[in-house]
Amino acid sequence: MTRQVPDLSLYLVVGAGDTGSRPLEEVVLAAVAGGVTLVQLREKNASTRAMLERAKRLKVLLVPRGVPLIVNDRVDVALAAGADGVHLGQDDMPPADARRLVGEHMVLGLSVGDENEAETADPALVDYIGIGPAFATGTKADAGSAIGPDGVAALRRRVALPAVAIGGITAANAVALRDSGVEGIAVVSAICAAEDPKSAARELRAAFSGA
Amino acid sequence: MTRQVPDLSLYLVVGAGDTGSRPLEEVVLAAVAGGVTLVQLREKNASTRAMLERAKRLKVLLVPRGVPLIVNDRVDVALAAGADGVHLGQDDMPPADARRLVGEHMVLGLSVGDENEAETADPALVDYIGIGPAFATGTKADAGSAIGPDGVAALRRRVALPAVAIGGITAANAVALRDSGVEGIAVVSAICAAEDPKSAARELRAAFSGA
Repeated sequence: MTRQVPDLSLYLVVGAGDTGSRPLEEVVLAAVAGGVTLVQLREKNASTRAMLERAKRLKVLLVPRGVPLIVNDRVDVALAAGADGVHLGQDDMPPADARRLVGEHMVLGLSVGDENEAETADPALVDYIGIGPAFATGTKADAGSAIGPDGVAALRRRVALPAVAIGGITAANAVALRDSGVEGIAVVSAICAAEDPKSAARELRAAFSGA
Repeated sequence: MTRQVPDLSLYLVVGAGDTGSRPLEEVVLAAVAGGVTLVQLREKNASTRAMLERAKRLKVLLVPRGVPLIVNDRVDVALAAGADGVHLGQDDMPPADARRLVGEHMVLGLSVGDENEAETADPALVDYIGIGPAFATGTKADAGSAIGPDGVAALRRRVALPAVAIGGITAANAVALRDSGVEGIAVVSAICAAEDPKSAARELRAAFSGA
C-alpha cells in the first residue's frame, strides 16, 4: 500500500468529555505545541452532528500544524470531516468493511488487547495497531485488565505493523514501555487532565524516547 | 435526480430493542408479509459492529421481497451494508454532507418537526421527510410534543417532498391522517409490540388507505 503511516510517537486520544471545563480545541492546540504527533477524536455519546462539527474544527486546526486527525469508530464522520483516518475497536466496523469505504488513502488503526484480537490485524487492511490497556485506566469503562509492558511487547511481536501502547500511560510509567517495541504511546488523561497539557506532552515524549 | 422514492405507504422503524423477546428478523418478516413497504433499522445503543451485522441480515431478507432498507443516522453502516438509504434526524449528519458520501443513488430521508426544520429539507438533497411526532409517543425519548394531524398537514404543505407521518400512530388514529397529505405512515410499536405483527401491519395499511 502507498499510505504513509503517521508518526505515532505521541498520540492524543480526546473527546469533548475529556477536557473538563477547557474547550477541546484549546487542549488539543496545547498538546500539539508540546509534541503530540497524532490526534484521535473519540466521542462515544455525542450526536453525529456534534461529532462531525468537532472533527471539522479539529481538522482546520491540525492541517496547518501537519498533525493528522484520526476519528474513532465512525467511518462516516471521518469521511465527511476529511480526516486522515479511522481508529477501529473490536466492536466497531470490521477492518475489511471500513477499508472498502475509506479507500486506499486513509489510515486505519485497530485496537488489539490479546492474541485473538492480534490475529484480526491484517496488514493488508490495517496500518497500525493500538495495544492495551498497558496499565490500569479509569478513562475507558470497557477496557480489559492491564497487560503490562511485557504483554505489550508480546503483542507487538505478533503483528507486523507499527504500534502504539495505550491505557493508563503517564510520564512516570512510559519509561517501562521503551523496550516494548512500540513506535509510540497514546494517552487521554495524562494530557487532558494535566494542568498544563503542553508541558505534559513534552514530558511524555521525553519519558518514552529517553531524551 | 434519478432516484426512485420508495413506496412510503407503511414504513416500519425498528431496532433490536423494539421487538422484546422476539428476534428482529422474525418481526420484520411478519411485518413485510402484512404489507410493510419500507424498513428502517434504528439502533441507538448498539455497537457499530452489531448494527452492521443486523443491517446486513435485514438486507438479505428484504432484497428478495422487494422492500428497501433504510439505516437511521449511520451513513457508514448504510454504505457497508448495501442499504438503500439513510434516514437523518436533525442531530445527525447534515443532508449536504450525507449526500456527498452516499452519492446520487441512495435515498435520504429527513425528520422534520416544525417549520424551521422543514426549511432544512432541501429537495436537491433529500428524497422524503418524516413528519412528527404526529401523536404522543413513548418510543422515542427525545421526540417533541405531538403536533397532531393538522400539524402534520401544515408541515406537509411546506415541503415539496413525499412524506410519512410518524409518532404514536395506531390503526385507530391512522384514520385521522388520511387527509393530511402524507404519502404514508411510519410506526414502531404499533407493529413491534403487537402480538401478531403481520395482522397489525395489515390493519394499519387498511386504516390509512381507507380500504
